[in-house]
Amino acid sequence: MSKPINIAILGATGAVGTEILRLLESRNFPLNNLKLLASHRSIGSKLMFRGEMLEVEEVNKSSFDNIDLVLASAGSSISKAWLETIRKAGALMIDNSSAFRLNPDVPLVIPEINPSSLIGHNQVIANPNCTTILMAMTIYPLHKIRPIRRIVVSTYQAVSGAGTKAMEEMKQQFKNILNNKEPETDILPYPLAFNLFLHNSNMTDIGYCEEEVKMINETQKIFNEPNLRITATCVRVPILRAHSESINLEFDEPFSVEEAREILLKTPGVQLLEDWQKNYFPMPINASHDENVLVGRIRQDFSHPCCLELWICGDQILKGAALNAVQIAELLISKNY
Amino acid sequence: MSKPINIAILGATGAVGTEILRLLESRNFPLNNLKLLASHRSIGSKLMFRGEMLEVEEVNKSSFDNIDLVLASAGSSISKAWLETIRKAGALMIDNSSAFRLNPDVPLVIPEINPSSLIGHNQVIANPNCTTILMAMTIYPLHKIRPIRRIVVSTYQAVSGAGTKAMEEMKQQFKNILNNKEPETDILPYPLAFNLFLHNSNMTDIGYCEEEVKMINETQKIFNEPNLRITATCVRVPILRAHSESINLEFDEPFSVEEAREILLKTPGVQLLEDWQKNYFPMPINASHDENVLVGRIRQDFSHPCCLELWICGDQILKGAALNAVQIAELLISKNY
Repeated sequence: MSKPINIAILGATGAVGTEILRLLESRNFPLNNLKLLASHRSIGSKLMFRGEMLEVEEVNKSSFDNIDLVLASAGSSISKAWLETIRKAGALMIDNSSAFRLNPDVPLVIPEINPSSLIGHNQVIANPNCTTILMAMTIYPLHKIRPIRRIVVSTYQAVSGAGTKAMEEMKQQFKNILNNKEPETDILPYPLAFNLFLHNSNMTDIGYCEEEVKMINETQKIFNEPNLRITATCVRVPILRAHSESINLEFDEPFSVEEAREILLKTPGVQLLEDWQKNYFPMPINASHDENVLVGRIRQDFSHPCCLELWICGDQILKGAALNAVQIAELLISKNY
Repeated sequence: MSKPINIAILGATGAVGTEILRLLESRNFPLNNLKLLASHRSIGSKLMFRGEMLEVEEVNKSSFDNIDLVLASAGSSISKAWLETIRKAGALMIDNSSAFRLNPDVPLVIPEINPSSLIGHNQVIANPNCTTILMAMTIYPLHKIRPIRRIVVSTYQAVSGAGTKAMEEMKQQFKNILNNKEPETDILPYPLAFNLFLHNSNMTDIGYCEEEVKMINETQKIFNEPNLRITATCVRVPILRAHSESINLEFDEPFSVEEAREILLKTPGVQLLEDWQKNYFPMPINASHDENVLVGRIRQDFSHPCCLELWICGDQILKGAALNAVQIAELLISKNY
């Protein structure tokens, strides 16, 4: 993969797919040919790339011929359905779905954290879940210095994680309510305008929803710490595209706020945003369309000498999904993996 | 106080004041005379009570003559300014502000939790902060059975806590953004429509904002547990009137989910709302205008054998403020304190 390559975006018309397209253009990605693939529904759609209108094609058995790299973001069932075809075509898939993330043979990668996990991939690399990436970016640099013993996290997740249609539905719900009409729900399980609810991914038998289980399992895998203790509460809030997280970190020994701040100030992909005088800390409106994960209000936990409190915001579609996938692709190319 | 009494509502036109008025009516409160007091700004306003339009009067030195009970919700400085006048008039103040909450001579009361603290009041009783009341209602019944060792809480607070003008401002911000206009901020420090931010109460020198410090200090005082370990992260979200809280409780020993559920099922003022099949748990739209604090998704913390996770929602204006104050008044009357 040392020369310009042929890329297919599978799920090109979705929230993540369109952002991948934009990033390939803005980052001057070294590509030769680009193919936009989606389901039957999207046939005929056209998307602009480097000044050209590209037609979206329906994915089929020969779609991956001559393709080097597939950036997939069309959901687990689609990724599973096409993996063997992609492999047989000799291509590599970077998959945004949860289909293969916990497969021990599949690297689960955040380039800033575990780039060497890419070595020995078996033609499929998994992109972690958005909440996992955003949290990991800000806590791994601290974990490297002094091991984290336990994490208690509560999330404030934007509707973009449920897709572009859910984003439009939520906006329409707001319009209805503001005009004294009933909000309608079709994609979302409950009204989200002027409301919030616990993440509605499937419930597991330990009482955690799948989104919460992802945060636990994926963080353990990326950090290569299978026994790292994590508890998570995932909540959907009426925000369009950036997630926030309230993170309580317990270390083996005290970790000074000053040292944590200095470490995070120097961490690529992370931006410290703290103005204590003005009570100004990360907000979704700052984090939206920002490639960095914003972190702030780092403070000593008043209730525990070995705990720190962190507040983070990050663009769910960018570093939480599309950007991390494109960075994996760039790393593969630069390292010749 | 065994016969119908004379009451003054100080701050009658505010979000909490108008709700107190509604509750005095709907609960058939045994009152003789009712006086509505507010600042100069509200002179001439009229509010309906038991079929009569009552005029709002500007508070002055003789406002409290012949008044038995003042329900105050006009802010700390107003409560401080009028306390001595109220005392001299021989009246008792139930104060919604934070002015006297931590004064050791002032009872800080949630009737379901520490009713006997009312005994020996010195003509002023403090109503706790909304986030404190809602959390305390759901965790104290567990604490009584097996002591809580530590609390980690993150809040999702409605804009009603910032007053009716802030509620209107947030709605207008949504209208502007949905019509491609810039949101305007006057009362709120930042746009709250499609956004959220860490609570903007004054920052203290321990890195916690005052709202968070209230949750810590007030819970310790109400539980009479000055060393109870609590850490809190308070967040303002674009919700109109019900607060939510993600609460992690550490006990001295394991506490089974089944037992916690049974205890909360029997707790007056608390409603268990859990449908695990349907992924249906408390939401602000359920909690709004409900006098109960809703609790659900009680689960064993996967990361700690002695921890439980709780999710609660409660009406910030009702049990979080006006209802608790009226319940204190009812208790005073029924117990002849």
